[in-house]
Amino acid sequence: MIRTHEAGTLRKEHEGQQVTLAGWVARRRDHGGVVFIDVRDASGSAQVVFREEDHAHDLRSEYCVKVTGEVRVRPEGNENPELPTGQIEVVASEVEVLSEAAPLPFPIEGNTEVSEEARLKYRYLDIRRQQIAQSLRIRSQATYLANEVMRERGFVYVETPNLTRSTPEGARDFLVPVRLQPGNWYALPQSPQLFKQLLMVSGLERYYQLARCFRDEDLRADRQPEFTQIDIEMSFVDQDDVIELGEALIGRIWKETLGYELPTPLPRMTYADAMARYGSDKPDLRFGVELVDLTEYFSGTTFRVFQAPYIGAVVMPGGASQTRKELDGWQDWAKARGARGLAYVLVQEDGLGGPVAKNLSETEIAGLAEATGAKPGDAIFFAAGAAGPSRDLLGAARLEIGRRCDLIDESQWSFLWVVDAPMFEPVFDEVGRETGWTAVHHPFTGPKPEWADNFQDHPGEALAYAYDMVCNGMEIGGGSIRIHRAEMQQRVFDVLGISKEEAESKFGFLLEAFKYGPPPHGGIAYGWDRVCMLLAGGESIRDVIAFPKTASGFDPLTGAPTPITGAQRKEAGVDAKQKEAKPAT
Amino acid sequence: MIRTHEAGTLRKEHEGQQVTLAGWVARRRDHGGVVFIDVRDASGSAQVVFREEDHAHDLRSEYCVKVTGEVRVRPEGNENPELPTGQIEVVASEVEVLSEAAPLPFPIEGNTEVSEEARLKYRYLDIRRQQIAQSLRIRSQATYLANEVMRERGFVYVETPNLTRSTPEGARDFLVPVRLQPGNWYALPQSPQLFKQLLMVSGLERYYQLARCFRDEDLRADRQPEFTQIDIEMSFVDQDDVIELGEALIGRIWKETLGYELPTPLPRMTYADAMARYGSDKPDLRFGVELVDLTEYFSGTTFRVFQAPYIGAVVMPGGASQTRKELDGWQDWAKARGARGLAYVLVQEDGLGGPVAKNLSETEIAGLAEATGAKPGDAIFFAAGAAGPSRDLLGAARLEIGRRCDLIDESQWSFLWVVDAPMFEPVFDEVGRETGWTAVHHPFTGPKPEWADNFQDHPGEALAYAYDMVCNGMEIGGGSIRIHRAEMQQRVFDVLGISKEEAESKFGFLLEAFKYGPPPHGGIAYGWDRVCMLLAGGESIRDVIAFPKTASGFDPLTGAPTPITGAQRKEAGVDAKQKEAKPAT
Repeated sequence: MIRTHEAGTLRKEHEGQQVTLAGWVARRRDHGGVVFIDVRDASGSAQVVFREEDHAHDLRSEYCVKVTGEVRVRPEGNENPELPTGQIEVVASEVEVLSEAAPLPFPIEGNTEVSEEARLKYRYLDIRRQQIAQSLRIRSQATYLANEVMRERGFVYVETPNLTRSTPEGARDFLVPVRLQPGNWYALPQSPQLFKQLLMVSGLERYYQLARCFRDEDLRADRQPEFTQIDIEMSFVDQDDVIELGEALIGRIWKETLGYELPTPLPRMTYADAMARYGSDKPDLRFGVELVDLTEYFSGTTFRVFQAPYIGAVVMPGGASQTRKELDGWQDWAKARGARGLAYVLVQEDGLGGPVAKNLSETEIAGLAEATGAKPGDAIFFAAGAAGPSRDLLGAARLEIGRRCDLIDESQWSFLWVVDAPMFEPVFDEVGRETGWTAVHHPFTGPKPEWADNFQDHPGEALAYAYDMVCNGMEIGGGSIRIHRAEMQQRVFDVLGISKEEAESKFGFLLEAFKYGPPPHGGIAYGWDRVCMLLAGGESIRDVIAFPKTASGFDPLTGAPTPITGAQRKEAGVDAKQKEAKPAT
Repeated sequence: MIRTHEAGTLRKEHEGQQVTLAGWVARRRDHGGVVFIDVRDASGSAQVVFREEDHAHDLRSEYCVKVTGEVRVRPEGNENPELPTGQIEVVASEVEVLSEAAPLPFPIEGNTEVSEEARLKYRYLDIRRQQIAQSLRIRSQATYLANEVMRERGFVYVETPNLTRSTPEGARDFLVPVRLQPGNWYALPQSPQLFKQLLMVSGLERYYQLARCFRDEDLRADRQPEFTQIDIEMSFVDQDDVIELGEALIGRIWKETLGYELPTPLPRMTYADAMARYGSDKPDLRFGVELVDLTEYFSGTTFRVFQAPYIGAVVMPGGASQTRKELDGWQDWAKARGARGLAYVLVQEDGLGGPVAKNLSETEIAGLAEATGAKPGDAIFFAAGAAGPSRDLLGAARLEIGRRCDLIDESQWSFLWVVDAPMFEPVFDEVGRETGWTAVHHPFTGPKPEWADNFQDHPGEALAYAYDMVCNGMEIGGGSIRIHRAEMQQRVFDVLGISKEEAESKFGFLLEAFKYGPPPHGGIAYGWDRVCMLLAGGESIRDVIAFPKTASGFDPLTGAPTPITGAQRKEAGVDAKQKEAKPAT
């Protein structure tokens, strides 16, 4: 090492020692003949005093330097109690510039607001900033902790291929032309799902991997074309085993990184409950404001808008005092979400206000506050129509109310499991007719034991043996007990309308494997970027990814993606003739 | 868990307990009314006794079963001391078939030789076999140990992108069309080299990753298009620091997995020495048979073939007794390696035999045995010509001699560092003229300190600050201290004939980053597949890869790669118009 000490580790007990530091010029203060420079390295920073101007005159921000000097206790009154090294300083006797720095595109020290474009283009400078470096360190710590937990529990770390065949995960695959087999393409895996199930067939029993996944999805805020998941699969287990493991894993990580004790066992909420009470399959329980089902209440209404299969409401505390502009804003908000609007009444001391009120009967008006729990001064928002979209809208309104009314305690953690999701959901054609069923999770998800024999007779009601871990309104992990019996798998394919040929072409190798004594198995995958974002207190997964891309998949740092040369194109076999692949049906 | 105990953990002290096992039917022995079945799970296996035929009659090989019964100590004389569970058996009272198995393509138990094609196609069954499962477990253990060492030493685990821009590593990149930016392509990284150097510029100081790398190389035995490396980079270090870390890492792994104590510090051999004495930059020191330099000895020879800039020899113990066919075989062997042949003499009690002998002078004949250390009964092989290719040939002959004469002690470990490799090697055109220089490592490798100022004046002699860890004749890790000064980097580009434009287009973002106070840094990467192969005692890296591909990149299990549909092609933007990329010069 070209240094003897790390800057951030110097303390009073080093007094009198000759030390050599190496790091970056952070802050500089000139005080007539004396120059104070904070030298920063990965461990922290220490103040270096240059008595002779000539040693320091050419040291500018972010120069990389090596400094030798003697540690001394700072003169009384000059201590900095906020700095771990604030008791001491190093009186420089020698300094060497290891490398210079050009003028910076943005300052490293301080909390200057910097555009994301600049941050990503100069990511290596962005990471020098305290907050981003800290986020990457927390992610690293969490990764080490995950390894520790899985190792203690005897999981086998297995790396699965990244150059593979299309997997049926619903999103698009990234494709890779294969020079050695012109006309053929690899796909990058959307997840190791099929491989981890194969590893269960292979008898490894406990599989774990920090797995890179690739999904070619359309632009969405805070999505990356590649992301990481903590991928886990276990044999001979039931839902409770996977849930226990998930709680142990997340519990260890939260405890060791944040000192937070996970209150295990975590609460479990059924999917039906979550939808009915929170209008979401990933409810944020850090605040109340539950949905109220008014279908019964309005069953006899003459108000056409409320003559609907479902009518529900959510109360905005203090919402009656909103301005006309604010109330109009809610209409725009609802329309931006694809709704026609957001009906509301304002609860006043002397009755109900707002345009909807005059359409309601006296009885309907009289009991509404009690039915919804609204108090004078509140607003009540309504959604009427099919239960699904109406609850979605109310659930979103609930979150928006939480934000606008500042109801969310950001210091809290709200963890829960959402269980008993439906196996299937209907598929609609352009004119809204149900044309069939699609899997809510994936086609290998098993039914709950009580639905094992007859899920095919009631696809709309059958429940999956699936579980999602939700934290602060975000799904951070999800999994299921898989199907391991060929005849059951066939019944699922039948419900989904997947033909033998299609099943064979898409995942024939998994079905083939399942002929050879597959064990009962299940697993879970955690979205590692999201977990680390929560741990680091970030606002975007980009905060915990060293080199993220923009929403369109562009990397401002490297300039990727780029055009390729004709020679590259030719060599890679991009235009090689191929047998036409059968279109997926 | 659907079982109470793992089969392999049952011992005498479980006597009398009711247990439920879950696993696979391994061996079955029928003894008139009593059926013995070994139930195998990930922990091992236990013998289950079925007293009533009807419980067992339909249990065939590799059925997945759940068995409940009572543990009892085996009757005297029936113990199996070779099995950890050999003292007990489980008397079955209940059995449930969890899933059936079709007739197997190859047996799981025993050591049957199975074709690699079948093994890869049914990899999930192959992994059920003891040896492969064990190899994957050792790999997992080694991965956990690597994490442990790096965590103890404060390394930050950082995941770098897999969808990125071409990196200049010398091999071809795999390319990925980008649907959201039609006409543009990502490249899969050949290594995280540029990103790990950027992380040093970012001040993280200690980086580590289990990194997937992708190289589109031509067919070579035991290559995979994707492979894993333990990737490490450190700031403010010297060669000794990286070497110390490498020894600590490999030392821990060998000790914990194999009980082998690495004799640190490992010996270091210069590249020049390795080439001169072993004809290899990765010498296998498990046996002697060093190369002998006879250039001086034959300086006055009249034998035209030996009038060469270099002449060297290697002795084959007992080689004089080879048959004519065996000696001819060596000629074919040499020709297959691109040499014209392999000159030899046979050392006999009464003089020298073989076709070369008659071309030598009496003096040359008289002193040859002493000069080479050959004893009567040995053969001496010669290579004459340019030193490089001649030593290559002799080095290969040395290894072949080691194998044929059984000189290699397979139970030994031979670790060493090869240091002081040349920075550059000449590039030749079709007619053998030197046309310039290429980097032996990569263009960011620094010179040894004593060459810092003048490597450009003596490119053929300058030494790189690089180090390779060699084990049993295999390079398992390699790295270097990097260049962090722009002007030095420019001098390297000048030697390599890389223009400003080319440098800018290939790795402009790294050069840009180096403007902002880059620290001195260096690192190392271990070829994880190779390391694990050595640990597991495998013969191919395919033995320690869960789902490997064949040499042509084909995966017999999934059938990847495959043709894509016209719709996929269109959607992925494969044929989108693009700005023509500048051809790499």
